[in-house]
Parts: sequence; structure tokens; C-alpha cells
Amino acid sequence: MDRLLKELDIDKVGKELYALTERLYPICRSITGNGVRETLRIISEQIPIEVHEVPSGTQVFDWVIPKEWNIRDAYIKNSRGEKIVDFKNSNLHVLSYSTPVKGKFTLEELKEHLFTLPDHPEWIPYFTSYYRESWGFCLTHKQYEGLEDGEYEVLIDSTLEDGSLTYAQLLLEGDIEDEVLLSTYICHPSMCNDNLSGVALLTTLAKYLKDIKLKHSYRFLFIPETIGSITWLSRNEVEAFKIRHGLVATCVADSGTSTYKRTRNGNALIDKIVEKVLIDSDSPYEIIDFAPTGADERQFCYPGFNLSVGSLMRTPYVCYEQYHTSADDLSFIDPESFADSLEKYLGAIYIIEHNATYVNSGPKCEPQLGKRGLINAIGGQKDGKVDEMPIFWVLNFSDGTYSLLDIAVRSGVNFKYIKAAADALLSKNLLVKVDEHQTNPRMWSGSLNLST
Amino acid sequence: MDRLLKELDIDKVGKELYALTERLYPICRSITGNGVRETLRIISEQIPIEVHEVPSGTQVFDWVIPKEWNIRDAYIKNSRGEKIVDFKNSNLHVLSYSTPVKGKFTLEELKEHLFTLPDHPEWIPYFTSYYRESWGFCLTHKQYEGLEDGEYEVLIDSTLEDGSLTYAQLLLEGDIEDEVLLSTYICHPSMCNDNLSGVALLTTLAKYLKDIKLKHSYRFLFIPETIGSITWLSRNEVEAFKIRHGLVATCVADSGTSTYKRTRNGNALIDKIVEKVLIDSDSPYEIIDFAPTGADERQFCYPGFNLSVGSLMRTPYVCYEQYHTSADDLSFIDPESFADSLEKYLGAIYIIEHNATYVNSGPKCEPQLGKRGLINAIGGQKDGKVDEMPIFWVLNFSDGTYSLLDIAVRSGVNFKYIKAAADALLSKNLLVKVDEHQTNPRMWSGSLNLST
Amino acid sequence: MDRLLKELDIDKVGKELYALTERLYPICRSITGNGVRETLRIISEQIPIEVHEVPSGTQVFDWVIPKEWNIRDAYIKNSRGEKIVDFKNSNLHVLSYSTPVKGKFTLEELKEHLFTLPDHPEWIPYFTSYYRESWGFCLTHKQYEGLEDGEYEVLIDSTLEDGSLTYAQLLLEGDIEDEVLLSTYICHPSMCNDNLSGVALLTTLAKYLKDIKLKHSYRFLFIPETIGSITWLSRNEVEAFKIRHGLVATCVADSGTSTYKRTRNGNALIDKIVEKVLIDSDSPYEIIDFAPTGADERQFCYPGFNLSVGSLMRTPYVCYEQYHTSADDLSFIDPESFADSLEKYLGAIYIIEHNATYVNSGPKCEPQLGKRGLINAIGGQKDGKVDEMPIFWVLNFSDGTYSLLDIAVRSGVNFKYIKAAADALLSKNLLVKVDEHQTNPRMWSGSLNLST
Repeated sequence: MDRLLKELDIDKVGKELYALTERLYPICRSITGNGVRETLRIISEQIPIEVHEVPSGTQVFDWVIPKEWNIRDAYIKNSRGEKIVDFKNSNLHVLSYSTPVKGKFTLEELKEHLFTLPDHPEWIPYFTSYYRESWGFCLTHKQYEGLEDGEYEVLIDSTLEDGSLTYAQLLLEGDIEDEVLLSTYICHPSMCNDNLSGVALLTTLAKYLKDIKLKHSYRFLFIPETIGSITWLSRNEVEAFKIRHGLVATCVADSGTSTYKRTRNGNALIDKIVEKVLIDSDSPYEIIDFAPTGADERQFCYPGFNLSVGSLMRTPYVCYEQYHTSADDLSFIDPESFADSLEKYLGAIYIIEHNATYVNSGPKCEPQLGKRGLINAIGGQKDGKVDEMPIFWVLNFSDGTYSLLDIAVRSGVNFKYIKAAADALLSKNLLVKVDEHQTNPRMWSGSLNLST
Repeated sequence: MDRLLKELDIDKVGKELYALTERLYPICRSITGNGVRETLRIISEQIPIEVHEVPSGTQVFDWVIPKEWNIRDAYIKNSRGEKIVDFKNSNLHVLSYSTPVKGKFTLEELKEHLFTLPDHPEWIPYFTSYYRESWGFCLTHKQYEGLEDGEYEVLIDSTLEDGSLTYAQLLLEGDIEDEVLLSTYICHPSMCNDNLSGVALLTTLAKYLKDIKLKHSYRFLFIPETIGSITWLSRNEVEAFKIRHGLVATCVADSGTSTYKRTRNGNALIDKIVEKVLIDSDSPYEIIDFAPTGADERQFCYPGFNLSVGSLMRTPYVCYEQYHTSADDLSFIDPESFADSLEKYLGAIYIIEHNATYVNSGPKCEPQLGKRGLINAIGGQKDGKVDEMPIFWVLNFSDGTYSLLDIAVRSGVNFKYIKAAADALLSKNLLVKVDEHQTNPRMWSGSLNLST
Repeated sequence: MDRLLKELDIDKVGKELYALTERLYPICRSITGNGVRETLRIISEQIPIEVHEVPSGTQVFDWVIPKEWNIRDAYIKNSRGEKIVDFKNSNLHVLSYSTPVKGKFTLEELKEHLFTLPDHPEWIPYFTSYYRESWGFCLTHKQYEGLEDGEYEVLIDSTLEDGSLTYAQLLLEGDIEDEVLLSTYICHPSMCNDNLSGVALLTTLAKYLKDIKLKHSYRFLFIPETIGSITWLSRNEVEAFKIRHGLVATCVADSGTSTYKRTRNGNALIDKIVEKVLIDSDSPYEIIDFAPTGADERQFCYPGFNLSVGSLMRTPYVCYEQYHTSADDLSFIDPESFADSLEKYLGAIYIIEHNATYVNSGPKCEPQLGKRGLINAIGGQKDGKVDEMPIFWVLNFSDGTYSLLDIAVRSGVNFKYIKAAADALLSKNLLVKVDEHQTNPRMWSGSLNLST
């Protein structure tokens, strides 16, 4: 993993992430249907996901898998036969899960099926009607205001039929069964930050991780929001409890500040890890508390599971004006922010993989570091100062209770330097790793003395 | 109680509170005597208080009930026979508990018995000498400075004799024996904010509560400060421990910021409740820590009782210049602030009455709210947003450990909306009330599934 | 101890501290050698220290006592025979622990042994080479830049031979074995704030304390930094665990803000005590968390000992530019700051000695203070207010769990006034001291009633 981080070409990564988003952008996705399948097919070119189909009508906890929705075309023509709203221009134009329609309507009749954003007259809103049969069009408020009296011809060439809900997962098996969940949702049509950015980020992350040796197992989920996480949880109740840490990836490519939404418990290890990654990034960040609104963390953190799942984003959903509109397009995201988010995900995984608890091998006063070449020979010289600090922190606080992460947090030193100091001390036998099932540093009771 | 709150005409309430204060204002009260009795008589026109008389000489813990003090007249006449200080103009002119005096004094002799406020030359101070026999006059510093040499005729037509200490209580019995203490002191002569405001507020509050069904029992005390609470506690040691929450009402009618003084423990439920009421009020407020000075909370919170009694005021005693002077008069208080305080007391009682802990009936992922008509059918529309939030909070955090108050605090949502959400969820069987003696949500272990 | 504090002439103390520093300033000290012995001899004129010699080669935990270093003379002469660097001008000129040298060197050869501070061209740095044999000169960067090509004659007339490490201690035995450690280091050559100030402060403090009756035992250590504390700990493993509170005295005489570096645990009683002393001082101060860099607290707080040792300084080492240079001279320190530091050390000792936990003798309501002459007779008068507050705080919070220090912290009242209030209450039998092995106030269960 150190090599992966060292060799990462962050400019290149940003471009890759952006290019994948660009490719997925035109597809019309919903919580079921061929748009999801096509999205997963493109993802499968990069990583070996396992695709699942769950039949309509299947009970998943309190919910039932809905009918599958597919759409081929839709438009509104005015009395002169001009297409004034056309699905081919933007798949946001159709209320997601609209039932098929073909007919003529007066303006008044039509208006009951039209949705706009008066505050943003140039944008098309993104509205859905998953669980109540209905049809509708979303259009710009400007279009809406231009509508003349008269008869309109309306077509929605969709199907809403028994089929299945499609989702995918990828499990990268590590040395231990403890899992890290990385989840994102693949049900939104043509919008970028929410949430093709999450899809592209996890695909790319999985691509980097799949070939390296990992301690933890990593489970990637590409699911429709809400119904997808409920479906996965209902079919994986036992698996779910292997999840030790988790992140929901969404809104990760805009130029806003990185924002971490805590787990429901608020004091999980993943909370501490991501906060440390953000501190170590030396750029502004925000931490927000868990709220039971948002994306799939709502289900993962629901009290019967209460998994340690947070969400690392940039500007959170709802907090940006373009959210759930046609303005959340390719111009709203940028490769640099995208790559920065991916680096932070990798930073969190780096800590998950490398955090450990040690005891120093001689707890009664500091060992003599000079004779082991670990500090400067000439006392007073300042060149070595940066390197010595982490060493002293790791030595003093490696008492079997402080993990490297704890030491990094308490010292304010970047986790990477704390890890490097621990490695240096391990190489001189000045640290001993604590067996994870035995954290009591019994070795000290014998007053072990290093010097011989 | 919901009806009471809905029907409350806050303008009318403010006028009522002010009018009652106005009526009580002229009476000369002290810690004993007929002024207290007359005050309680007027209160008894509105609420069925029970008046107690405790004979002078009775031992109450470390204290002894003092002699009863009554006064009919008092003045200082100058050598020209002019009344230059006259009890009839202000009952503050006489040092409370002054022994009877009738005689002539030189200016020098007289001055040893005069008290003024040099910093506020127009105000008469309020001084007392309850437990050491003495006599004196309080006057404006301006009056004092106008005193000429010569002989003065002094009269204090008072009596200090065996009698009794008078206090009153009213117990509104609720469904349970757990009590809420609402205490105020009736020993101050003509001053308004401290503390006729407290007297009027509790009288009016009791008047509203006495006819509605309540869960908790509410005990109202109208007592002389310090000696009154000590007397009540010494005679009600067992009753005292039924008190679960309490508030001392004082200084509730000035235009200053609402201020809550915490209980001695500082983390009692009443502390959390009142802080939430103040947050929900959306106006500025202050929270101050308990200090063993102040009013009767000093005794209720003394460590041998250590009751959960705080004090909800506006500008606290001592913190306003007019405190304990003639300037704490009818112009210092106003009906709007008065009514606002009463609303906050009612707000606290509303939470005391309605706080409860629930478990959601299906802890594995959110239930489908749409099919139960609890959220909007069209996803993305914003009109229903305000109502959905409390529902999600109540569902997610009703795990048997968070009460509705806890959820309201954590979410930042007004308690009333949280309560309304809980009611809506209860009506759909999505919540189950936790038996107060059994908070462990055992029902979840069977993996109960709502959908059928 | 009250008398000591009352009689302390703080101007005189400041002059004494400064004069002792002045006297010790010229001596060339290192971690071993005659400079240390001469320093301890001067200290022993004032206090009865016990001097220890530990032979070179002795194993102390992971370390070995080094050879003893002594130096008589050292210089660099230029090709014209002029002494351009002369140990007699400043003992900082020689790298501490330089091996003996006598010979001629080209400028290029010489430069490998020269150390300067380019950022402060007028100052001589203080560098050491304790554990790797080496030689060198420290000089001003200005001197360095004036060096001409040519041959230089170099002399370091030092010896590095088997000998011993010298340290001293003084134990003032109090009523109990529990010890307070006061440690400072005596290994620095001619520099004042770091750390002759610490040496002078502890010497003077011990001089004041040695003749008064104390509850705790006080252990003063005068040791070379790092190797000295390691040596002392390795030879006193059992004694070490008698230490209940400790302070390392260093950098106590500059005009900067008082700064307290917490113990490793961060919540020790000494942490609370020193923070209270600083708050009560009514002047600015800083509290910094423990870090495993610094002076001997590194060893005392190393996890196998983890003693409650903090450090009360003014400007911390490293945080001032003059640190470890010739500019840390007699002009950098001043008698007023010096005396202020000593007063704060005494303030901490005052709390250590006088902190205690009481129960009030009647826990059910306040006792009547007026009849005992503890408060003003005329209620409302303000003159007595300052004195009453501490009395109410001590009474209310003396419930067997709050110590006087806890009460002083919670109330914000100066510890001295809290102590005085406790004394007044004790004299009236209103407080009972809690046996230190029995803090449960059982006496209250019998509902003890004071009044008779």
C-alpha cells in the first residue's frame, strides 16, 4: 500500500475519475432498469463486480422490490407539433418511474403533471415517483412560462413491469474477515456530483486496491439508494456484522470543502480516522454530526444494525443549489477536487490498514536512541528535529493503550510520520506489537531491561 | 394540555399577571405577619391554596421560627414637625423587622439607624434585620443629604411578638406521585420583579393547570424566603423526596433575557428540559451554573436534600441595579415579558408531561413511510420537508435509549414537532412505548418484521 | 506555612534568586565533572543537600553512566597567533564533552568542527556531544564569517576519563511519607533562564521550606538532565512510587507568561492545583499539554513510572530565541519574574498542604450563620459580601466528595479565601474533616441536627 500511495499520479487519477463520470453521464438510470445494468457493465470493465438481480415483489424488511422501470422516449409536443420538451435532450425531463402515457391534453390538464424550479428558471429539477404510480415531466421554469393555451401531445414510452432490481458488489478479501464497507448509489440519471462522482470514485478506488495485499476485507456496493441498501441488508444480515468501518461515497467531485458526516454513534474508529485524515490534509474541512436523512448511511446506521458507517463528501447534498437539478452537470465537478477526494479515501484506508497498538520494550525511562542511530549525535542541532518528535511520541505513548492513531491524534503529528517512527523503532526492537486479543502489557511487570 | 397551550391568549395572560402584581404591590410583607396573610388571601381567590401557620419558637433544623412582626405606621419628623420620612409613602422606608420605637433623637443618634444608597440618590433601599433585634429607616440618599441638625421625632409602631410564620401550598395531584416543585417567596414588601412577579406567575400557572389532567403531581409553594423553605423541608422530609424536578420562580417580569440557573448537580433532567425550552424559544437566553447563593434553591439543593431544583428567571437578582430598591416598581416590569416567562414555564411543563421513550417497531432499516401517507409521494418536492425531518429523527433514535427530549436536543428540532412526529408514528404502529421499568428493547431480538 | 507566606518579602526574594544565579553563572557545567560539583557546593551553603557520585560505566536502565568530562582551557588561534575563539570568554565556545585536541588545522579541516547560528550572528550556540566522542567549537556566525584562509592552532585541554556522575538530593520529611518531587537540572554551562533559574528557585524554595512543619515530604533533586533522572529513577524504583505530585523547575526567570506543562495523564491533582494557582494569580498564563519532549518530566512520566510530574515555567524552552545560546544571559532574566515564579511554586505547595475534604455537620439546609457571627446582621448591606460567598460555597459543597480545591475551582474563588472560610466554619463546628480513608459521609444518614 505504501508503494501504491507513492506511485499515485494524482493528476492522472483526476482525469481518469472525470473521464469515467463523463462516460456514465448520458445514461438514464433509476432504481431499477437497464440504465443501472448498463452502468454496472461499464464499471465491470474496470473491476470484477458481481451483479445481483432481485425479482420485483420480493419482500425486503418492510419494503417490497418494485416493478422494473424502463423508458425509451418521451416528449411534449405543442399544437404546432413542435417538441417543446424532449427526453432525448435530458433524461431529467421525465419524472422517474413515470407510467406510460400517450394522448392529448389541454394546458390545464398537462400542468398537473409538470414540475419546475421557479427560483432557478434555467434548470430542470430531478423528481421521482417510485412508490406511487404517476407520470410527469420536469422542465425549466422558463419553458413552463412559455407554454401557450392549446392542445398538447404527450408521449412517455415507458414500461413498469415485473422484472428485477439490480445491484453489484465486489468483495476484496484481505487477511482478516473484518470488513470495510464502501458504498455508493447508482440510481440517479444525468447528474454528476450526486452521484456519478461517488460511483467513479469507488470504481477507481477498487481498481487500485484489488491487486494489493490488504489486511482488512473491502466490500464495495453499487446499489440503488434506500431500496438498494435495504435489499442488501435484508439479504446479508450476518455479513453486515462483519463490517467494522464504512463510508458512503457521494458528492465527492465539486470544488467545495471536504465534509465528513459522522456515524450514528459519533465516536467510532472510522470517525476518528477520517477526522485525522482531514486534519492531516492541511486544508479546511467540516465535520457534521449524523442525521437520519441523507443517503444509505440512514439504513446502515439504523438502530437494529447501527453500523459504523460515515460519509466522506465535499459539499453535502442539499447544501448546494445545483443539487438534484440539471445544473449538477459536468461543469460542476473538476478533476482536482475529484482526485483530492480519492486521496482522502486512500488516506483513511491507509490508517485502517496500518493502525496498530504497541508497547515499548523498556517502559522505565527512554531508551538511548543516539547509540541506535535514531537521533542526532550533536545535541542542539535542529536539522533532525522533525524526525525525532514522532519517535519520542511513539515511544512514550506505546504503553498498550494508545494505538498509533491515538498517538497521531494526541501529538498532532501526521499519521504517516507516526507510522514511519513506529517502523523505525520496530526495526530496532524498541517496540513490540500488542496481540489484538491481549492488550495488557504484562511484559512490563518483569521490569524488562533492554540494555545488555 | 395541548388545548391549554393552543387556546392561551398571551396578551390577556400578560395583562392578568401584571394586574395581579399591581394588586399585591402596596402590601407590606415580611417573613411573618399580616402582610403575608393578606397576600395569600388574594392568591386564594384564584387557586385553592392550603395555608399553614407555624408557631414562633418552633425548631426547624438549625433554625428557630422567629417572632411575628407587624407594623402599622412609622415616620421621622423634623424639628418643624414635618414628616420627612413616612412609611405610608413607601413600606421600604422601614428596616424590615424593626422593633417599636417612639422618641426623640439628635441627628447624630438618628444617623446610626439610617440606610441609603449613595450611588442611586433617588432610590430607597430594601434592608432587613430578621434575626437581630434592631430598628432603622431606609431613605433616599437625597433625603439623607437634606437632613439638618436638630431634634427628630421618630415613630415605629410595630410589634415583634410570639405569633407564627405563614406559608401556603397547593398540591395538584396527577396520575403519578412524582412531583414537580414550583416555589416562590412571598416575603418582600413593595417590589415587583423581586418577587411579586414570581408570586403572580405561579398563581396564574396554578390557575391554568388546576383543571386539566396531568401525569405528574405539581406542588406550588408560597413561602417566606430561606426560613420558609427550611420550615417546609423540615416538616416534609419524606414528601421532599417525591420531588423529581423543581423550579424557583423569581424575577420573571423584567424585559431582560431569560436566564436559567442550573440545579446543583447541573445535569438533571430539568436542566436539560429548561435549556431546550430556551433554545426552542428562538430568542437569546443565558444559562448559569448553580451557586449556593440566591433564593430557596439554596435550601432545596443543599446536599442533604440535593433536589433537582433550578430557577428560571429573566435578569437574575443582583444583576440589575434596581434589585432590592424602590426602583423595582411597576414600571420596571411589563406584561409582554411576564407572559413570555409564563409561556416558558408552560413549555417546561409540557416537556415534563410529554417526554417518553419509545422503540420503533422494526429496527432493521426504515419502514416505508410513503405507503403509510407519512411523507410526500413525489420525491424531490420541498413542501413536505419540514414535516419529514422529525419523523426520521424519531424513528432512527427511538431505540429505547433516547427519549423524545433526547431526540429533540440531538436533532435541534423543536420538542413540539418531535412530539407530533411521535404521535403520527404511534398512530401507524411504527413506535412502541417503552415501559418505564423496562427500557431494554427486547422485542428487537426476535427480528420483528413489520411488513405483512 | 501561613506565616512564611505572610512574611515573604517578595522584592528581597527576587534579589536573592538573581544573586544566586549570578554567582553560579560563570561555572562551566556539563552532565558530569567538577562544574557540577562546584555548583552543588554553592547550593550546599544554603541547604543540606546530600551529594551522590555514580561511577562511570554503571548501567542505569538502557543507559550507561558516561566517562567524566573536565576542561581547563580551549582556544583557536589564527595564523598570526591571535586567540580568535577563547573558552575563557565563554564556556559555550566548546562543544560540551569535546575530547582533547592539540594541533594545527587548515580552515577547511577546522570548519568541520565549528558550529554557529546564521540567524543570530552575534550569539554563540550551545551544542553538546555527550554520547559520541567528538570535538568542536561553537562561535558566533560573525566570528565564523571573519575566518581567513590559513593554518589554525587548536587547543582543547579537556579530559574524558572514568570518573563519576554527580547529583544531589534533599528530602524534607513531613508528617506523611507521600512525596512532592521538585526537580531541576544542573548540567548547563553559562546560561541563565535554562536553567540556572530552576536551580536558584529550588534552592531558595528548599531554604524557606526546610524549617517549617509540613504535612507532605518534599524531595528536591539537582541532577544532570536526562541521564540524571534516569540514574535517579533506576536507583530509586521504590522511592519513586511515593511521589504523589511533582514539578520540574526550568526557565522560571524570564519576563514571559507563566506556562504550565501538564503531566502525561493530564488530569492529575497537581494539574488542577497549578492551574488554580495560575487562575488565582489574576495574570495571563498558558497551559500546555504534555509532550514527550522537554526536560526530565520525559523520564518521570515515561509509562513504566508515569508519575504525576508537570513543569511550571515561564516561556518554555525552544519557544524563546535565546534558548540554548549565549543570549540566555543575566540580562534575559529579572528579579521580579523570578520572584513571581517562586510565589507560584509556593502557591502550589500551599494547596498541596492545605487541600482537604470536609462534610458540613448538618446537611439538611443551611445553618443559621448570623447567630454565629459569620455573616452580616443587616441583610442587604454589601460590605460583607466578599466574605460570605466562600462560606456558602464551602458549606454547600462540603458533602464529602468536593475537596476545598474542588470548591475553589467550581466557585472561581481564590483558594486562600476558601481555605479561610473552611477554617472559620471549622472553628464553629460547622465542618467535620473527612478521614482520608473514609470519604463516605455516613454521619448524615442519622439526620444529625446541629441545633441544640
